[in-house]
This record gives sequence, structure tokens and C-alpha cells, in this order.
Amino acid sequence: MMSLPSCGRILSSLLLLSITPALAIWPVPEKISSGDKTLWIGEDIHITYNGQRLPWNINSPAKCKGFSSAEIVKGAVSRTLKAILEDAFVPWMLYDRLALEETEPSASAEKTFITSITIAQNGTEKSSKSLIGDIDESYKLSVSGVGEVKIHAVSSIGVLRALESFSQLFFQHSEGGVYTTMAPVDITDKPQYEHRGILFDVSRSYFSVESIYRTIDAMAWNKLNRLHIHATDSQSWPLEIPAMPELSGKGSYAKGKTYTPEDVESIQIYALQRGVQVIFEIDTPGHFGVAALSHPEVVAAWQATPWQNYCAQPPCGQLKLNESKVDKFLDTLMDDFLPRTNAYSSYHHIGGDEVNFNAIALDETVGTNDSTVIQPLLQDFIDKHHGRVRKHGLTPIVWEEFPLHYNVTMGKDVVVQSWLGDEAIRDLVSRGFKTIVSNYNFWYLDCGRGHWLNFDNGPAFQTFYPFNDWCSPAKGWRLIYSYDPRAGLTEEEAKLVIGGEVAAWSESIDETIIDSILWPRSSALAELLWSGRTDAAGQNRSQIDAAPRLSEFRERMVARGVMSAPIYMPFCTQAMNATACEFVM
Amino acid sequence: MMSLPSCGRILSSLLLLSITPALAIWPVPEKISSGDKTLWIGEDIHITYNGQRLPWNINSPAKCKGFSSAEIVKGAVSRTLKAILEDAFVPWMLYDRLALEETEPSASAEKTFITSITIAQNGTEKSSKSLIGDIDESYKLSVSGVGEVKIHAVSSIGVLRALESFSQLFFQHSEGGVYTTMAPVDITDKPQYEHRGILFDVSRSYFSVESIYRTIDAMAWNKLNRLHIHATDSQSWPLEIPAMPELSGKGSYAKGKTYTPEDVESIQIYALQRGVQVIFEIDTPGHFGVAALSHPEVVAAWQATPWQNYCAQPPCGQLKLNESKVDKFLDTLMDDFLPRTNAYSSYHHIGGDEVNFNAIALDETVGTNDSTVIQPLLQDFIDKHHGRVRKHGLTPIVWEEFPLHYNVTMGKDVVVQSWLGDEAIRDLVSRGFKTIVSNYNFWYLDCGRGHWLNFDNGPAFQTFYPFNDWCSPAKGWRLIYSYDPRAGLTEEEAKLVIGGEVAAWSESIDETIIDSILWPRSSALAELLWSGRTDAAGQNRSQIDAAPRLSEFRERMVARGVMSAPIYMPFCTQAMNATACEFVM
Repeated sequence: MMSLPSCGRILSSLLLLSITPALAIWPVPEKISSGDKTLWIGEDIHITYNGQRLPWNINSPAKCKGFSSAEIVKGAVSRTLKAILEDAFVPWMLYDRLALEETEPSASAEKTFITSITIAQNGTEKSSKSLIGDIDESYKLSVSGVGEVKIHAVSSIGVLRALESFSQLFFQHSEGGVYTTMAPVDITDKPQYEHRGILFDVSRSYFSVESIYRTIDAMAWNKLNRLHIHATDSQSWPLEIPAMPELSGKGSYAKGKTYTPEDVESIQIYALQRGVQVIFEIDTPGHFGVAALSHPEVVAAWQATPWQNYCAQPPCGQLKLNESKVDKFLDTLMDDFLPRTNAYSSYHHIGGDEVNFNAIALDETVGTNDSTVIQPLLQDFIDKHHGRVRKHGLTPIVWEEFPLHYNVTMGKDVVVQSWLGDEAIRDLVSRGFKTIVSNYNFWYLDCGRGHWLNFDNGPAFQTFYPFNDWCSPAKGWRLIYSYDPRAGLTEEEAKLVIGGEVAAWSESIDETIIDSILWPRSSALAELLWSGRTDAAGQNRSQIDAAPRLSEFRERMVARGVMSAPIYMPFCTQAMNATACEFVM
Repeated sequence: MMSLPSCGRILSSLLLLSITPALAIWPVPEKISSGDKTLWIGEDIHITYNGQRLPWNINSPAKCKGFSSAEIVKGAVSRTLKAILEDAFVPWMLYDRLALEETEPSASAEKTFITSITIAQNGTEKSSKSLIGDIDESYKLSVSGVGEVKIHAVSSIGVLRALESFSQLFFQHSEGGVYTTMAPVDITDKPQYEHRGILFDVSRSYFSVESIYRTIDAMAWNKLNRLHIHATDSQSWPLEIPAMPELSGKGSYAKGKTYTPEDVESIQIYALQRGVQVIFEIDTPGHFGVAALSHPEVVAAWQATPWQNYCAQPPCGQLKLNESKVDKFLDTLMDDFLPRTNAYSSYHHIGGDEVNFNAIALDETVGTNDSTVIQPLLQDFIDKHHGRVRKHGLTPIVWEEFPLHYNVTMGKDVVVQSWLGDEAIRDLVSRGFKTIVSNYNFWYLDCGRGHWLNFDNGPAFQTFYPFNDWCSPAKGWRLIYSYDPRAGLTEEEAKLVIGGEVAAWSESIDETIIDSILWPRSSALAELLWSGRTDAAGQNRSQIDAAPRLSEFRERMVARGVMSAPIYMPFCTQAMNATACEFVM
């Protein structure tokens, strides 16, 4: 059996991306070169930031406060060194079978250590506002053969991205110590898409703040930068609104299953400091049922049955469309909530999906499902509601049904999120809308786990057997990775596709399993949107190249405490079988 | 909103199984009745076993050694009280929205406590042998309104089953303390199937002994009683064989990724003490590739390519069929391994699935894929290999291909495991074979998570897009629960279906995700096989009845440390919405 590193030395590096663990940075950088020299790393490193010595503390990596560049970088350096020195893994599953001990560098030979990390940042940040919008995330990273590390970036977030790539060079040695075998390393890198995110549904199931933090951590490892929190829906209202305490007071699932204003602030700060901007969605006017428990005056069709006539899933409930109390309600709601997000986010997501016209017929302020009556009301709704968002300095995001299905006109500032597929995307960009893609045929992570409704033993059993969910089967990482959200668009149109999100709707997902729902599948999205569907040669990226790198990165995530599902069995990850689990026709 | 317990008081108990948490014992007992009285439970309980005071220790529930009835029961009592007193959960997700505090019993009112647990066992066990085979698992459990608990059983395993049901009566109070609201309780219970199991594949992915223990724990909570360990396959040989150390020495994935003889013994003892009999499978003559690394003389078609011509998945490799060294090899292997299992198990599983005749053509001792040549060789193989199993006092289990596809005759003692579906089951029982069902259309837990092979960007991409696995989509618990393995059989034939196993083949499953792969779906199998597909009235059990009980039981599993997936969102588990998530036509 040929052991991997010697193999890596013989062949040129780019060809070997698929079988060389030490080059397996995820998402793959724009340009990368590496050598075959071993470097070790310990705590004795001289770290400077723009010429000043940078203090760091491996034991309190999360404790950074505030938004100055130096604070952001200090926190990131502390976390990076913790990941490298404490959370590395012994890569037995990446080397040949039973060959770990003979493949690792000698632990007894003289060691060259990383001596310095020199960080240079051109720009500076002074407040949270500097960390939102279209940040320059580019960076250069070099690791010399004698252990000198240099990082150049425009923004502190670029520094974070560099540090993450740096952390992925290292492995735990089976006899102790941490090493890389690929020095010198040179990386030049930047993302292909501005918006790279995860939709996290905390309304249908409640998620602890800790599980949100853990997800943000993993997002930062994946260089993902947008956490879309679907905060309210018809099933529960976990979001505390101090001006309207009755909303969560009557609409949350249970005492304590809420997000306090402190939680909302902490989540946003925690995320921004990791290069992740949080976007809250308070879905309107549909998906609003549970608010009827505290505000029956603003909700129509609450718990209307049979639900399938009035909404997409139980329980039904929509904001009334011709009721002045709704305007006051939304004024109060937005005046409370948006001032608590606009320092940390560019966006507010107003929802806008799946408005049901039969439910509007039950709304006594409208009383018909006639679209000629309803359309002007929806136009008025969106005008007013987008106005509330803009009033607080935020850009509205809306699901695509408003422009595409309800024939509503919207400001060109509005960003549209599309879940319905390629035709919808083409339609949106042809109308000039910036578009975020969450095509359910590819990027819905909840699909394919079986239906969550219970069917009676009679006709329902016969009709719905074998009880698949609506978007079955599951979208595996290979399918997620295969999708090009800009395919078939002109260059100008393609620019309007600013990115995408995988969506983890939580009808049957909660925090016990969220890690393996999200990972490694969100990692597939992360590489697609950071590195692009095509490589430098213009060829579609291949599963055959991606799988070994993703397998390695998955082990890093697990070692760092996020329980990602595996790519495949160790037989396929071990180097000598790199081609055995390929299917080439 | 009507709170649940009062609801439970008004309506009769059987009708309310679907919405009354405190009656939600999983799997549902044969007969159960309950009241509406609250009882609390603490550590001050007088526990006797056959008239003798039974010492127990909540802090070392796993420490029981040996196989005397009293020791088994003592361990079970200790674990049960730990589960009740330390690992109970606050059932906010089972009561109405935000109604926990008003629905729980008053923590300040005078409390009636459980005072005694009186255990009477008719039979006695003296060795591990008493705990294998078709054990009498029946039991009676009563909890009086004044806190006296009585358990009657024939076997210590029956006592275990009673204690498990007892443990499921209790909840953690939000202000501290543990209670049930359903006293008095009377249960009479016994299983419908003898064999209720899980197939755990530790060859394709390695699983720690701890993860196997955790699975055994959860099996005992579910009253499952057979753990089928698929111990070796073509990908890795993790099983240490002291007479042939080279098998794992060259065939395991990495140093330490093996099961020592001590592990094998510990797993079997741990399982038996929890009412679970372990059945090891050393798959032959197919699925034997990796043994070629140490014993090339006994393996044909090792890593033959293209693999799809010679085996079901990479890497290929089968035992040679006309090679005397194979006989000696298997003699040595079985003489080493079986004496280490026959004190703890009734069975040895010889595999026998997916023998590939083209691979036999590559076997120079045969050299043809002509079935007229191969058939007598397979007959000879099975005769000899079953003889090895019988020599050590064990009953052979074999996958169905040997009798059904290879036209091989076998002793009537042999138990056949069927994965190919209803026609195969009918064929097997019509030939008089005891049959274990693992119909892949229903009970394969690995299905539907996406393919694990990597496809090139050319024709393979086009052919295999969207990269579903062979048995996609996933088998949800509702589908698992819908399947009657005895459907369409005569009464005599039905008796030959001794039970079933869900199968968790581990091509892309490892211990980070095994909990949510197995649970709650194995729980669906557990109720189906313990309680039967039909209820006392002869009606098929309904998802509508099962889902709320399974949701509650899932919370118990999570609280006890097994990360089961949820059934659905809290909206559906909360009592006031018990019917909202039903689909009735």
C-alpha cells in the first residue's frame, strides 16, 4: 500500500485535491498551493495585528465583546487556536487502513514549529454596522516552510476567513501534538456569492439559544454568512416583544420557550463577531395564526378546518387584510422589534409566502376569495409593511409569491427569496429583483424523512401510503452540490442571484437532531456559494473531488462538537480507497 | 382550553390512549387500566424480591454482575429508579400550550408517595443460559392508589419488562419531584413475537462499545430483545479472533477500532442483563473481501473491478468455494469465536446473502458462473458451515438467498432472515422455515438518505441524478408501523414468522448519528412486534393512536440520553392539538 503523503509529494497538488487530506480546505479556496514540509503548532506563537502584539486566550474564545476590528480578530484568533490545539482530530480515517502510525510525521524527530502569525488588515471596523451588508471577505494566507504565517485582508471578516482556512491545515498526532504536512501553503481566496445562508425555523419547534450558537459556530467554519431565523409562524410565537408581551405570553409553547430581547441581541452579536449576519423573519400576512391567541382582532381563519382548504398545514391563520387594527398592530410590532435588529442587520424578512385566498374569504373585512378584490389589498399591505421596514433603515426581503403570484409591485430595493424553482428565479431576475435562492427541489433539508401528519386507517391511509412528505425524497449533499442557481441566466441576470439558503423547516426537526440535518449538507451549499459551481477551468465541480475533502471537513466539525452526519463509511474515506467509491461510466 | 388530566378523568381510558400522556406506555400493553390519582415517588421505597429485601443503588445501575435472578432484578430496579428519579422530563410538550403549571399536580398539596415495590417471580435463573431462547417475558404490574406496587412475572426478564412499564408512568415536576397522575394502574402484558430486534452493522462503520451499550439500553426501554451484530463484511474486520489475530490485525480500519474478546463478552453480558440476546453475524461466503488482506488463499475476487459485475458494492470478495483451506479457515474461526458466544446466545448468523456467481467464476477453484456447477458447492458449504454452528450448540441463522435462490436444502432447525419482501416470506414459511423478517421496503433504516457513491461529471452523473440510494425514499416510522409481517399467511404459517428486525446498514451511518437513525423508528417496530399489528378488537393499530404515545416515549428516550428524532413539532404533541395533526378522510 502506498501511503498518502508520499503520494502527495510525487504528484502535483491540484490534481490531488481529491485524495490529499492536508489540502482539503472547505470550501475550496480560489487559489491554493502547498508543499510537503511538516510543521508543528503549539501555544508559543508571536501573534501581531497591524503591527501590534495581539493578546489571545484559548480558554475564553467566546468572550469577545464589541465590534472594533481588533476585538473581532482577537476573538477569532482565540477560537482558531482552540480549534487547532484542543479540537483537532487524529485522521485515522483519512490515511490508509491501519497506516496512521507509519503515515504521520515522526513525533520524535526534530520539529519545526509555527512561530508567528502576522495579521495585516487594510480596513477597520468601528461598529456593528461595519460588519453588515456586502462585506469584503477576501484574504490571502501564507504559511512559510519555517513556520511564519501571514494573513492579509481588507476586513476583519476576511481575517476570520483566513484563520478558518489556516485551522484546517492541522491534525492531531496520535502520540500528542498538532501538525500539518503541507507547508509551505499559499492561499488567495474570496467568495463567489454575497449571500450564503441557512434558514433556521425556531417557530414550529423551539431551539435553545445554545443550539443557535452552535449552528453559528459551524456556519463560520463553513464560511457561511447569513442566518435567516424564521422566528414566528402559525404554530408558535417564541419571540418576546416587550411592547406586546401577550404575543409570546400566549403564543409560545411553554414558559421559558421564548427568545428574550437579550437573547435576540446576544444571537446577533455572537453571529456578527463570527462573520454571520442574522436576518429575522416575522412571516406576514400568512403563517400568522397563533397571534390569534392574544390578538384575535387581527387574525382571520385561525384554526379553520378542514385546514387544507385554508392553509398549507395546520393550524391556519392569516392577518386580516382590510382591518385598521392590523396596521396599528404591525406598527407597534415593528417599532418594537426592528430597532433591536437594525444595528446588526441590513435586512428584515417580512415573509409573504403561501397567502391563502380562501382564508381571506373567511376574513370578514374582505369576505371573498376574488383576486380582483384581494390584489389591491395585498398591494396596500406590502406598501405599508415595506414602509415600516424601510423606516428603520432596513431592506425588506419577501418570499416570491408577492411579486410572482399576487401581481404586486415592489420597490427595487426589495430582495426576493425564491423556493419554487428555476422558472421562478428566471422570472424574478428578469424583473430586476435581487434574488436569494432556496429551490425546494435541491435545498430543503427537511424533505424526505416521512410525513409528519397522522393518517386514519381508512381512506387517508390508502391515499397517503407510504406516508412520504410532500418533497420526498431527501436532498442529499450530492444533489445540493449539483445545483447551479445561476444556470441558464445571462451575465446581468446572474449577478442578481446574490446567493442562496438551505432551509431546515422544523415540522419534525428539533435541536436533538439539528446538527445532522444541517451538516454536512449545508457544507455542500457553503462550497457551492463560496467557491462557485464551476472551478477555475470553468468545469462543474465534481463529487469525486469534493467528497474526500468534505469527509475530512466533516471530521473537523465532529471534533469541534457539531454532530455532522458522515459522507460515507471509513472504507471510502481511507486514502487507498479514494477511487473505490467512485462510479465512473 | 381543557387541560388533559381532567379530560382523562371524564372519558374512558381506552379511548383516551391517544391523548393521555400518563397512559402512554410504549409498546402498548396487552391490557391496561388506570385512574386519576396522583402519586409521588422518592428514594424511600421498600423493595422486596420474592419476600427478601432487595438492595439497590441508583448511582451504580450498570454495575450488576452475573446471571442469578436476584442480581438481574437488582440491576434492573437500580436502573429503573435512576430513570424515574434522575432522568424524568417535564412534559411541557404534552400538556396544553403554556398550561404546564396549571396542569401539573400541586407541588404544595399533601402528597401520597409510592411506598413499596413487591416483586414476585415464579421461575428462577441460575446462568446466562436461562436468559436465552424463547423467554417468558410476560408480567403483571399493579400500582395501588395508596402507593403499593406489585409485580408478578415468570422470568427476571418479565420483571424487567414490568419495571420498564412502571418507569413510563412518571414525570418530572417543574418545581421538583416526580409524579404520576394515573394511579391506580393495572397492566397485564406479554409480547406477540418472540424475536424483536435491530441489525447493527459494525463492519462498514466502526461503532464504539459505548454506543452499542447505549443502543442496548434503548432497546430494553422499547422491550426489544435481539441485537443482531453484523460483525464483519468486505469493508472491515473489526472482530478480534485470538486464534487468527491477523484478521483484525490487517482487516480493521485502524488500531483500536476493534472488538476485543473482552468487548464481545461484555456486550453480551450487558445485553442479557437487559433482556437482550446478542446474535453475531460473520457473513459468509459473500461479503468476505477484507479477509484477503490476511488470508488471500481463502478469498476470491478481492477488489475485483468493475465491482458492479462481481458484488453488490465495493469492495468485492467472497470465500472460495472449492478450496480445502477455506474449511480449515472456518474451522479455526468458528472454534475460536463460537465458544465465546454460546453461553450467551442461542444463535449464530452465518450470513449467506448476495453470493455473486461472477465472482465465483474468478475463483480459480471453481472457474465458472454455471449454477449447475456452483449449486452443489453451495450445498456443501452450507452443510459444513451449519455443522460448525451446531457443533457449538448454536442454531444457524441464514439470509434467505441460500434456500430461495441457490436451491440449497437446509436443516429444519435453521432460522431464515428475509429482506426481499412478502413473496420471499411466503416462500420460506411454506417450506416450513422459521423466519425473521427485515423486509427492506419497510424496515431498512439506512434507505433514503442519498447515495453514498461519488459519480463522475459525465454519464454517471446523468444516469444517477438525483443521486438517490437504491431503496429511497426513507422509511418513516408510520410506514414501519404499517407493516404486518404475518399478513396473508395461514395461522400455521404465521407462527413461523417468529419476529423481525429493522436494519441499520452503515454505509453512511456512524455513531455520531446512530441514535436518530434508530429512534424512534425502531420503537415503531418494537410496538408492532410486542403488541402486534392489530389491537384487542382485531383492528389494525392506528398512527393516530400511536403518535402521541410515541411522542411521549421519544421525550423519555431523549431525557435518558438517547438522541431520538422527534415525531413532529410541539404544536402536534401538545394536548389541545391532539387532533389537529391528524388527516382523516
